[in-house]
Amino acid sequence: MRILAFESSAKAASVAVAEDGRLLGQYFQASALTHSRTLLKMAEDLLRNLELTVADVDALAVARGPGSFTGVRIGVAAVKGLCWGADKPVIGVSTLEAMAWHGLGQEDAVICPAMDARRGQIYTAKFRLEGGKPLRTGEDRAVALDELVSEAKNEKTAYFFVGDGAELCYNRFLEEGLPARLAREPLRPQSAWGVAMAAAGKTPEPAPDLTPTYLRLSQAERERLEKLRQA
Amino acid sequence: MRILAFESSAKAASVAVAEDGRLLGQYFQASALTHSRTLLKMAEDLLRNLELTVADVDALAVARGPGSFTGVRIGVAAVKGLCWGADKPVIGVSTLEAMAWHGLGQEDAVICPAMDARRGQIYTAKFRLEGGKPLRTGEDRAVALDELVSEAKNEKTAYFFVGDGAELCYNRFLEEGLPARLAREPLRPQSAWGVAMAAAGKTPEPAPDLTPTYLRLSQAERERLEKLRQA
Repeated sequence: MRILAFESSAKAASVAVAEDGRLLGQYFQASALTHSRTLLKMAEDLLRNLELTVADVDALAVARGPGSFTGVRIGVAAVKGLCWGADKPVIGVSTLEAMAWHGLGQEDAVICPAMDARRGQIYTAKFRLEGGKPLRTGEDRAVALDELVSEAKNEKTAYFFVGDGAELCYNRFLEEGLPARLAREPLRPQSAWGVAMAAAGKTPEPAPDLTPTYLRLSQAERERLEKLRQA
Repeated sequence: MRILAFESSAKAASVAVAEDGRLLGQYFQASALTHSRTLLKMAEDLLRNLELTVADVDALAVARGPGSFTGVRIGVAAVKGLCWGADKPVIGVSTLEAMAWHGLGQEDAVICPAMDARRGQIYTAKFRLEGGKPLRTGEDRAVALDELVSEAKNEKTAYFFVGDGAELCYNRFLEEGLPARLAREPLRPQSAWGVAMAAAGKTPEPAPDLTPTYLRLSQAERERLEKLRQA
């Protein structure tokens, strides 16, 4: 199965084409430019340079969250539009599950993708490698770093951190004397390669069914609820 | 310093833009298409999508070999042409040194980039991490895998293999009961990110001085010498 994958859940953005788990091409960008300007252009360039068109892919895949609300929305919206136009199904994957693929080789560690969720929290989940693939051992959640530290104190295993919240967690673990490892560049940030790998083996769905997963209310929603509560 | 880096020494090709060691963007492709068709187009797309031009980069960098004769020639020729046209200096780096950057995190291992050089040989070198950077401990060379195995038998350290010859070496080491690790996708093949990292801190040179490093005679040269010998 040939998959065109999109990742735009944080500051960086990337697109990738993979075929039966093999990476044919990836285009990664970590500039200050907004994803709404760059993302589809990257996909167009990548396909053209591979001498492929959207018609040549079997399914699209996208990181459906958690992550930056704007980033996730742009990714999901762009992919739904493209699926509609090109009559393709989609595979929405957890951003955190996609990041867990960056932990290949960390057989003896808890693979812990971590995104900075602000307000003292991280978006995180837990995985371990089994048969050369990340196997989920904990659900996606928004949690205080303190809580992750408490959990780790009851475990004997080193944590392997990946993502834009990885360094934050890694430094805190070191302070606490907990065993920790940090994903290295260029596999620290999320990647469309991870999305493609997480999507492989999953069944594509009709694009209209795809929804983002935010895990938390957006700032606008929080403020509206606060206003209603005060009214 | 902003660097535009090129890697085309094997089947895959990639270009990257890095600024003071930070990756701004990378475009990677592992299709069957020839580098002469795809490489400069990738650079053009990447720069445009970053809203940069060649004028905005301080230097170009390229993997100057060892590697596929054709691949290395295309990379070096394309970069020399672009340097001439845009009046930019160049940093030529060893393909193997660029690959060694894929070993970040492997503090306790011999980092061993390995390319399949055919005819029972590999192109390889040795590095170890020091201060978060690969430090060279062995020169670039074309060597029989048997010889590498002999050397490793006298050492106690695990080898970390990266590159298109990595799996070959890794499997042989396991057969011999030697400790070995294998770079995982997508950091198994060479990358322009590695070229940019290896180039950072080096002094750019005038592009006309740049020459490929093949380490061995090409097939055509070998056959010519053989003919002359028989004549």
